[in-house]
Amino acid sequence: MLEASRGWRVGGHTIGLVPTMGALHAGHMSLVERACRDNSRVVVSIFVNPLQFGPGEDLDRYPKSPDRDLDLLQRAGVAAIYKPTAQAMYPPGASTRIQVLDVADPLEGAARPGHFEGVATVVAKLFNATEPDRAYFGQKDAQQVAVVKRLAIDLDTGIEIRVCPTVREADGLALSSRNAYLGPQERKAAGCLSAALGQAALAYRAGGRSLDEIRLRILGTLKAEPLARVDYVELVDPLTFTPPGTLAVMAVWIGKTRLIDNHDLAQPFPG
Amino acid sequence: MLEASRGWRVGGHTIGLVPTMGALHAGHMSLVERACRDNSRVVVSIFVNPLQFGPGEDLDRYPKSPDRDLDLLQRAGVAAIYKPTAQAMYPPGASTRIQVLDVADPLEGAARPGHFEGVATVVAKLFNATEPDRAYFGQKDAQQVAVVKRLAIDLDTGIEIRVCPTVREADGLALSSRNAYLGPQERKAAGCLSAALGQAALAYRAGGRSLDEIRLRILGTLKAEPLARVDYVELVDPLTFTPPGTLAVMAVWIGKTRLIDNHDLAQPFPG
Repeated sequence: MLEASRGWRVGGHTIGLVPTMGALHAGHMSLVERACRDNSRVVVSIFVNPLQFGPGEDLDRYPKSPDRDLDLLQRAGVAAIYKPTAQAMYPPGASTRIQVLDVADPLEGAARPGHFEGVATVVAKLFNATEPDRAYFGQKDAQQVAVVKRLAIDLDTGIEIRVCPTVREADGLALSSRNAYLGPQERKAAGCLSAALGQAALAYRAGGRSLDEIRLRILGTLKAEPLARVDYVELVDPLTFTPPGTLAVMAVWIGKTRLIDNHDLAQPFPG
Repeated sequence: MLEASRGWRVGGHTIGLVPTMGALHAGHMSLVERACRDNSRVVVSIFVNPLQFGPGEDLDRYPKSPDRDLDLLQRAGVAAIYKPTAQAMYPPGASTRIQVLDVADPLEGAARPGHFEGVATVVAKLFNATEPDRAYFGQKDAQQVAVVKRLAIDLDTGIEIRVCPTVREADGLALSSRNAYLGPQERKAAGCLSAALGQAALAYRAGGRSLDEIRLRILGTLKAEPLARVDYVELVDPLTFTPPGTLAVMAVWIGKTRLIDNHDLAQPFPG
């Protein structure tokens, strides 16, 4: 991979990287399309990274659609699909770990111990293997974006992190490979996340309500949905991921599926 | 730095990196000369990395010889001296840390908590900023070599780590910038480290003695020197840094100066 990428660089190309775990949906493809507009060579990595899954999480049943992924990426015109095996990424003896302190600690970091260490480690490996000019991440995983931005700067990668908006279903549900876990009733119920964010954005932008009041309103909307169980709802600063701030972030269990979503309340909610 | 390095790569050059903390001596220059033979462009970094010094260590009084360093490197014909400030390397908010598990835990890692995390973090930054084909390290810092080799592989850097032999004074003392701390009596006493290694290599190669016996013999030689206080002496595997093995490693205080040295007993001791 590195040889190919350096060959492109020597040939005068710019290189964009889109890291994914496969099971591609329109959210991923919006990143790929943006990368193809910005760069003359685009690499899409597909790697379900065991290091970022905790014990009891869904590593073993994470959705896979290799044929469809290949078809989508070929039609999008990417230069390479980088699809290493877990054995190649973490051979016996591999023992280097990357931690991003502070921003990786709360919320997703607290709920999923080791998750962001796994993300940071694999992202640094993918950056080194592809040496891109730019790398593309979805706003859907807002805290991951903050962690990766910090890492890209701190490790002197010279890589520009470009963040693309969350792509949503007609009812507002943020696209996620994990939506495939939802049964029909759960799928309907899952609309409560984006509904709560949309209502909160309206209330915040109308003015007159404190961030605390807005947070309680979001909690109220979520709790009105019988199939939903709230993990966290916080209004945080988008760089530090600590309160106070206008970035509403949430993790909500719908049955056995854990969904996350977020929206900056200072911005109109789409749709 | 990265722009310059990529320019060289596009121009068809190979790039060698020699990371140093300045206060250059003949040991460093042997790395630089080797790098200049192996690569068409050589970068020497000079950075006294605060992250690898513990509280109470010698960060503030670490030897400096900037004019002499510059002169030596210009005469050696290096393409660039990369000399970032601590502020540029660790600006406010910088929070990414790299750990190499296992090999960094014992010996120097145990004696200097956080040391190898500092080394791993700065080395990864230097690798990213210079994107070399090869990087050069001295055998004098044997455990650092093992940590950096592990990191270079684990993070998919594609960088080849080349290790150069320890350069020694006439009496065998391994060159180190910290030798400048030694008073005249201490300087004489410091010869006990290499003397112990030389005697041990003779005894081991003569056969008939166990590694345990050899280790006790080294301890005996060191303890015969009144100015020396042993921190550790171990015979370890050169990749894992755990016993048993033929790599004799030691840390010895001579007065207020902590010196390290090592030698593979299966090899004849030089000089």
